[in-house]
Amino acid sequence: MKREEWSIRTSGRGFTDLTSRAGSFVRDSGVRDGMCNVFLVHTSASLILGENADPSVRRDLETFFARLAPDGDPAYEHDAEGPDDMPSHIRTVLTQNSLSIPVVAGELALGTWQALYLWEHREIPHERRVIATVW
Amino acid sequence: MKREEWSIRTSGRGFTDLTSRAGSFVRDSGVRDGMCNVFLVHTSASLILGENADPSVRRDLETFFARLAPDGDPAYEHDAEGPDDMPSHIRTVLTQNSLSIPVVAGELALGTWQALYLWEHREIPHERRVIATVW
Amino acid sequence: MKREEWSIRTSGRGFTDLTSRAGSFVRDSGVRDGMCNVFLVHTSASLILGENADPSVRRDLETFFARLAPDGDPAYEHDAEGPDDMPSHIRTVLTQNSLSIPVVAGELALGTWQALYLWEHREIPHERRVIATVW
Repeated sequence: MKREEWSIRTSGRGFTDLTSRAGSFVRDSGVRDGMCNVFLVHTSASLILGENADPSVRRDLETFFARLAPDGDPAYEHDAEGPDDMPSHIRTVLTQNSLSIPVVAGELALGTWQALYLWEHREIPHERRVIATVW
Repeated sequence: MKREEWSIRTSGRGFTDLTSRAGSFVRDSGVRDGMCNVFLVHTSASLILGENADPSVRRDLETFFARLAPDGDPAYEHDAEGPDDMPSHIRTVLTQNSLSIPVVAGELALGTWQALYLWEHREIPHERRVIATVW
Repeated sequence: MKREEWSIRTSGRGFTDLTSRAGSFVRDSGVRDGMCNVFLVHTSASLILGENADPSVRRDLETFFARLAPDGDPAYEHDAEGPDDMPSHIRTVLTQNSLSIPVVAGELALGTWQALYLWEHREIPHERRVIATVW
């Protein structure tokens, strides 16, 4: 088992592609056939495996979630950190913060169109901690 | 690899914090660096990593899901066990019932604000079975 | 660790039950106590653990998602592959494409009502690739 911790600076709501970083980690680990887990230590950002070819997919995901869980919805009690606070927790619960991906022949076995994204849900840039493990 | 099975008595729709139970299991296992998986053997309850500081976050999650998948929606065919039957399955599909969490230095590597919750979706209390594994 | 790759022909939007295939894989692997991961190499289909007894649950899940992320929604930019293109990506992000399931006494430790489904989100039949790993 090998492990690494990454600190990712997001630039506010939106996607950061971690695919090549995760790929390097797996290659450097020397693990040929196994599993890789990426884990996000936060409750207002997500990890997803999303379409990597057309940026409009990510814009449409934002459109969808902005409509599904709008910022500043008066139905929420919890707004300690602003109108995007509770929607960020909802987005995280609806998506994922732990992903396990097969390692085949020393590489992450992602599909042609799959990329690993950190999805920041808060409007303000954040420092996000990810724990990557391969075994 | 160590394994334990837990039987959790819920008190109807709502959250049961399993963080300290999972932490004890990991500490007692003697595993220093590895992975822990918690798995819920049901289709009408979930496991989530949720915000642990402010109880209003959990109330708002209930509010959100009650609006997204309302009990007694006439659009559903499946209501064999009552108006909360199909909404419970929907909530489970939208969240998770298997979570893999890194173990670092003999502890679950959860963030400061992350807690492991069993989220009961049925109105009536249930006995829920969780399988915890560490390796 | 043992690994297998499956090619699954879907018949368009809907569910394909992979439970017995996954069960055979685990039994043939000789692993008695461990974990099994199933991983779907696509961004427009999902893997879920769903209710297996009443087919109306699956019909209701389709009803729910068709309403939540309707095909042909003019809010989406991305429609390169048709009106069900972007809704398929949304359904995938809201559900899962990697599932880790405990193996107990040589069998997948699924609950009585849990089945492993591949959920095709595209209207047109597709060839879907799944990587199964047991350790």
